[in-house]
Amino acid sequence: MEVYLDNSATTKLSPKAIDEMLRIMKDVYGNPSSLHSLGKQAEDELKRARETVAKTIGADSGEVYFTSGGTEANNLAVLGAARARKRRGSRIVTTMIEHSSVFESCKELEEEGFEVIYLKPDAQGHISENDLADAVDKNTILVTMMYVNNETGCILPVDRAARIIKKSGAPALLHIDAVQAYGKLPIKVRKLGCDLLTVSAHKIHGPKGCGALYIKKGVYIKPLFFGGEQESKKRPGTEALTQICGFASAAEELTDLSEKLDRITKLRDHTLSRLLSIDGTVRNSPDDALPYIINISTNAVKSETMLHHLESHDIYISSGSACAKGKRSHVLTAMGYSNLRADTALRISFSADSTQEEADRLADAVKEGVETLVRIN
Amino acid sequence: MEVYLDNSATTKLSPKAIDEMLRIMKDVYGNPSSLHSLGKQAEDELKRARETVAKTIGADSGEVYFTSGGTEANNLAVLGAARARKRRGSRIVTTMIEHSSVFESCKELEEEGFEVIYLKPDAQGHISENDLADAVDKNTILVTMMYVNNETGCILPVDRAARIIKKSGAPALLHIDAVQAYGKLPIKVRKLGCDLLTVSAHKIHGPKGCGALYIKKGVYIKPLFFGGEQESKKRPGTEALTQICGFASAAEELTDLSEKLDRITKLRDHTLSRLLSIDGTVRNSPDDALPYIINISTNAVKSETMLHHLESHDIYISSGSACAKGKRSHVLTAMGYSNLRADTALRISFSADSTQEEADRLADAVKEGVETLVRIN
Repeated sequence: MEVYLDNSATTKLSPKAIDEMLRIMKDVYGNPSSLHSLGKQAEDELKRARETVAKTIGADSGEVYFTSGGTEANNLAVLGAARARKRRGSRIVTTMIEHSSVFESCKELEEEGFEVIYLKPDAQGHISENDLADAVDKNTILVTMMYVNNETGCILPVDRAARIIKKSGAPALLHIDAVQAYGKLPIKVRKLGCDLLTVSAHKIHGPKGCGALYIKKGVYIKPLFFGGEQESKKRPGTEALTQICGFASAAEELTDLSEKLDRITKLRDHTLSRLLSIDGTVRNSPDDALPYIINISTNAVKSETMLHHLESHDIYISSGSACAKGKRSHVLTAMGYSNLRADTALRISFSADSTQEEADRLADAVKEGVETLVRIN
Repeated sequence: MEVYLDNSATTKLSPKAIDEMLRIMKDVYGNPSSLHSLGKQAEDELKRARETVAKTIGADSGEVYFTSGGTEANNLAVLGAARARKRRGSRIVTTMIEHSSVFESCKELEEEGFEVIYLKPDAQGHISENDLADAVDKNTILVTMMYVNNETGCILPVDRAARIIKKSGAPALLHIDAVQAYGKLPIKVRKLGCDLLTVSAHKIHGPKGCGALYIKKGVYIKPLFFGGEQESKKRPGTEALTQICGFASAAEELTDLSEKLDRITKLRDHTLSRLLSIDGTVRNSPDDALPYIINISTNAVKSETMLHHLESHDIYISSGSACAKGKRSHVLTAMGYSNLRADTALRISFSADSTQEEADRLADAVKEGVETLVRIN
């Protein structure tokens, strides 16, 4: 039996989402923008999906904009907010441990003349609330931070950011990249006080190629592209109805988050104690990280070598972000870790369905790998 | 039985595409960027899909970039080409009858400081080759034109554009929006001499939310958004594998285009002669239009009223572009038609499966509508 513990990269589609997508594929083929009843039927499905997703983050359905995924939603938020506010200021505050879709859009904004402050994490991966407060000045138009880091599971102080912005008097919007937190931690946009928040379907057992951006009512951001009237012109193009309804179906299953979190915390503790008993192995995730993600370094076997070894046992994990395709982690580097530690890192990421048996098979195989594989260099 | 003659808005998914999408949904859930074999399996599917789509337009597979649909692909082409070439010139040449995704991105470029020339169609909807040649000067960096107009079926002189650009000595890229031509006319990117070409899946019985942009090898355009390494960084984000494989499956069925064209030409002629026998009804499509699209005006019954009447007979057509959601057609207005003619327009759009029985039911119902419904104003 396959052991898939790479759920931060992507997840298996839930059977209910598959059924829902099949229903749409077979029965609902109208264009939601068409004026006739086949269009209306599609529009009704779209509306229902939007309400479902909105409910999972405590938003009004008119505040949810469907995109082609987390990358597009993050770009729409970051580029769109900065470009819309360029007359009000020029500073953007973010961190050194963001996903590439935020990091690279910040790099683009630097080319467009904005100043970007990248907050550095400490050795545990934490971003300091004080550093954030120091960085946000009156010229700041955007603060963009992830809720949970995708490589270490570290939780960022996003729930303090709104107050910090308010106190500073900055005309800054707050964007939270909640891709890794969504479906794992309870998210309420009003409580977070954010203006923009990104979620993605394929991290919660929904389809790839679908995500959503929450845009608080009344907040204007510049679109990335232009065309028809769809998504209130913030994101034109015929809606990917099959994906969107699959997303909503997966979102409906996001219940009992705290029970799931408790169970996964126990599983994480068990897995971690087994992994850390392997000679030389250290933990890269902080103690208070989201338990769905474990990041360790063996300090012995190169990540890719270990991945291939595990694969031969039908076990699938990763060395870090899938989007980085094997490049050295910018997150672990920012945390000040050595090349050896960064190059021998392993990320284990659970889904709510992961079991102790799977974790034990993983721990056994990592141990065997460290004992049998050639040491690095 | 439902008569669906709104195939230019969107099409029914082909049964083969549904089966293929179901296979991917159930069996292939890895992230194509993951380094393990589940990722490799997904990457292999992606590669095969890319080759299939590339073949349908005579491109190399490395020249095909998947997007979330035609709107995104058109924007990536138009905004991406202009922004990449802004140091070489400032003029963009397009037409007044483009799809909103090209038209609105041109409007955005005007705000960014570019000069856009919008060529006017004649009363038949034709764009003149001479007008095009006059508009393209040494300062022109982009010519963007649709192959087939989505409302009238009019065919634009895209096959002459490459020569005109070459003769002018302009540093212009040629972008063709081939969304309505794809799967209906044979398309060979080398023969067309274009640098960029847009296709969309949901117009050829593939899924909504998926399209592709052909980018000729060696041509650089600026991405719309930024992130991981996917699609050679021209279009980052985890690939929508289910959609992409459904697209490829639909693309595989694009065979015997000229036989299909002959059959639809006969069907068009039959349908048109029946519709034009209705008192007051005139044709808005030129004689040499793509036969898959018929545009007429009853000059008697408002489009939306007629649409509702037809719907009561389980017949579905449109008043024009779905993306315009009932606004007065900018295409018919550009052709110099009166408000009456524009406001009573109907677009009938066939798929290769459309039948004479369907066409006759439509013609009967339109006739009944003109005879029984209240005259406009």
